[in-house]
Amino acid sequence: MNWGRYAQDRLSEIARCSVDEIGVTRFPFTPEHKAAIGVIQSWMVQAGLQVHMDAAGTLIGRKQGPNGVPTFLIGSHQDSVKSGGRYDGIMGVVLGCLALEKLRAEAVELPFSVEILAFADEEGVRFPTALMGPRALAGTFDPAVLDMNDKDGVSLRRALADFGGDPDGVSALARDPSKTAGYLEIHIEQGPVLEVADAALGIVTGICGIERNTVTFAGDTGHAGTVPMDGRRDALVAGSDFISAIHDAAINIPDLRATVGALSLHPNVVNAIPSKVELTLEIRALDDTVRDNFARSARSVGDRISGLRRVDFAMERTYEQPAVPCDINMIGDLEAAVAAIGHTAPRLPSGASHDASAMADLCPTSMLFVRCKDGLSHKPEEFASTEDMGAGIEAVARFLKRIGQSGLSDGKSKHR
Amino acid sequence: MNWGRYAQDRLSEIARCSVDEIGVTRFPFTPEHKAAIGVIQSWMVQAGLQVHMDAAGTLIGRKQGPNGVPTFLIGSHQDSVKSGGRYDGIMGVVLGCLALEKLRAEAVELPFSVEILAFADEEGVRFPTALMGPRALAGTFDPAVLDMNDKDGVSLRRALADFGGDPDGVSALARDPSKTAGYLEIHIEQGPVLEVADAALGIVTGICGIERNTVTFAGDTGHAGTVPMDGRRDALVAGSDFISAIHDAAINIPDLRATVGALSLHPNVVNAIPSKVELTLEIRALDDTVRDNFARSARSVGDRISGLRRVDFAMERTYEQPAVPCDINMIGDLEAAVAAIGHTAPRLPSGASHDASAMADLCPTSMLFVRCKDGLSHKPEEFASTEDMGAGIEAVARFLKRIGQSGLSDGKSKHR
Repeated sequence: MNWGRYAQDRLSEIARCSVDEIGVTRFPFTPEHKAAIGVIQSWMVQAGLQVHMDAAGTLIGRKQGPNGVPTFLIGSHQDSVKSGGRYDGIMGVVLGCLALEKLRAEAVELPFSVEILAFADEEGVRFPTALMGPRALAGTFDPAVLDMNDKDGVSLRRALADFGGDPDGVSALARDPSKTAGYLEIHIEQGPVLEVADAALGIVTGICGIERNTVTFAGDTGHAGTVPMDGRRDALVAGSDFISAIHDAAINIPDLRATVGALSLHPNVVNAIPSKVELTLEIRALDDTVRDNFARSARSVGDRISGLRRVDFAMERTYEQPAVPCDINMIGDLEAAVAAIGHTAPRLPSGASHDASAMADLCPTSMLFVRCKDGLSHKPEEFASTEDMGAGIEAVARFLKRIGQSGLSDGKSKHR
Repeated sequence: MNWGRYAQDRLSEIARCSVDEIGVTRFPFTPEHKAAIGVIQSWMVQAGLQVHMDAAGTLIGRKQGPNGVPTFLIGSHQDSVKSGGRYDGIMGVVLGCLALEKLRAEAVELPFSVEILAFADEEGVRFPTALMGPRALAGTFDPAVLDMNDKDGVSLRRALADFGGDPDGVSALARDPSKTAGYLEIHIEQGPVLEVADAALGIVTGICGIERNTVTFAGDTGHAGTVPMDGRRDALVAGSDFISAIHDAAINIPDLRATVGALSLHPNVVNAIPSKVELTLEIRALDDTVRDNFARSARSVGDRISGLRRVDFAMERTYEQPAVPCDINMIGDLEAAVAAIGHTAPRLPSGASHDASAMADLCPTSMLFVRCKDGLSHKPEEFASTEDMGAGIEAVARFLKRIGQSGLSDGKSKHR
């Protein structure tokens, strides 16, 4: 059995559950989602799982273990961005199902219960919220988001109810941590690290914390011909000093990323000195202290530039999400499983958020990355190879056998 | 007689010839222009001038000198930008008329003919062209622009004809250089130099040449969380290096201005590495060689950054207009006239274009700047003081008497 080929075929099959655009577009609680649910259900059944959809629209396939044992969870999301690829999210569901199908084919009985979770909405593209499914399980769901509307004015509550979910039942989905052994998410890397390292698989050390800041430099506009250079208070020159300095400072700090991604300029005309520049500074780091220190030093850099260029400087944090370290025991078990199939998987942080970010509030959490071509994601060109996915399935199957043998955490190793 | 107060009152009077918006909005060949023509005509008559409107819509007031003598021209424009001020352009017409009215009051007879020119369109806000009036006199008018339309689809030809001009007669307006002694334009500075120097008046050494360039840096986009810092080809970081370097290089070069005024970023989202930045680089200098050398060094800077940041760099010149030096004899005569009224007028370049830019193709050209508050122009807050304008009127009257006594250039000092 070529499990990687099997995975590739399944991903081609479910890629058709998409609106008719280039790439895959599958938003939550839509006809495309409904079609995908049918396909995933058939995969779960083939893996020997009992299938149901929970109140939050998460499709769950469960294999019951011996009485009283805890449950190990494997999950990812079914939805895509607009004109996205065929791997992001859904590949984790496919590989999880196939790992269990492989164990079933080998007649392996795990000494714990196991569930595959296909979450409805991780991307947050349709509604201005996301992660309802994992938050419900973790007991961190905020029912207020049910009143948020999509761009057509349909509320999340209405969309979920029409889909067969139960808005008023979402809060009751919270799992008992003592009965939850852990969570594993399999996902494409969405970056270039594994490709550069020539590795099929990578083991995630944690999910980076994120903060976003709005940075403003304000000076004076004026005619580009009539105001001499030395009398200027050019906001863009100050902003440029800042952008270069931040980039160069970030290069030297391991597992930190600092990006000025968006910028707006006023008045933004060819013959006027810029009076104001507003830019976004996003900082991600595996260590919240490192991130916080970097933000502090960015503020110092801005203050220094403000003095040198005689412009006003302001920096305001608009969003923050703490880092989620992965469980150190599961990192070790994943490494051993990968080694057992003859691979070496580098450790790397996840710069992007995942369902695992929310699941970490429930139980010890881990992630296995699969190499993707050119580091591309959220695009029709997104690609993971048959061989790499095959290695992923084998590694996950080995991992499950291994944690079955070594005895499962009952949540005591939970770190947060 | 308080000539400055007189000027201030006249500027208040004609400021009412405006569409009903904040500030002054007076576009060419409109009812507001028609109303302004009536007012200016009355000023010209009070100065003892014979008034007519030429085929290009320039209102001309002429005082005939002895037979066979050349004509000295004093001009500026009547039009404004949208929601502009009450000084830009029209102040030069007011001060020119009052200088002649002052000489008339003193019973001074000049030994040459003199004309005040109120040009229709210098700002180029209504039609995508400007300077029709001075270009017609200089013989550089291109009749093709008559077919350009304003935003309502009205052609310049139609607008001019409806206004009482003669589109087919514009080309015939070209003056004989041998009968044209020189051109003086009085204008607010539109910059902060005189205010910083604590001087009411300034003498223009020349009108800067201008070039505009489109500069592009192109790298790779990617997820701001998943692409490590050292693997990035961030176009904005490279663009920022460039903007800071250009500014710092320009500061050290006298009479040169280099401005990155407009910038567009792709994809311009908070969590994506910028793949492309396109920016405008405008360079102005009094010396075309200095400007050209600066553009060459900007290109070298871009090439160096391109190598360091591993991004692509391109720089394309999209517009160029050579510098116009002012006539060295008239600069001297203006300085002497200003000194005679107890003032000191710094020499300075004009960073902005003026009607004089086109008149320089006809005859020796000079400009007198009047200080403006906070260097502001093209805004309702634009302001020149009664005292400063009074000094301007006195200086121009002295200047005219002086060139009358010293004998007039017959065009031989023309430098281009």
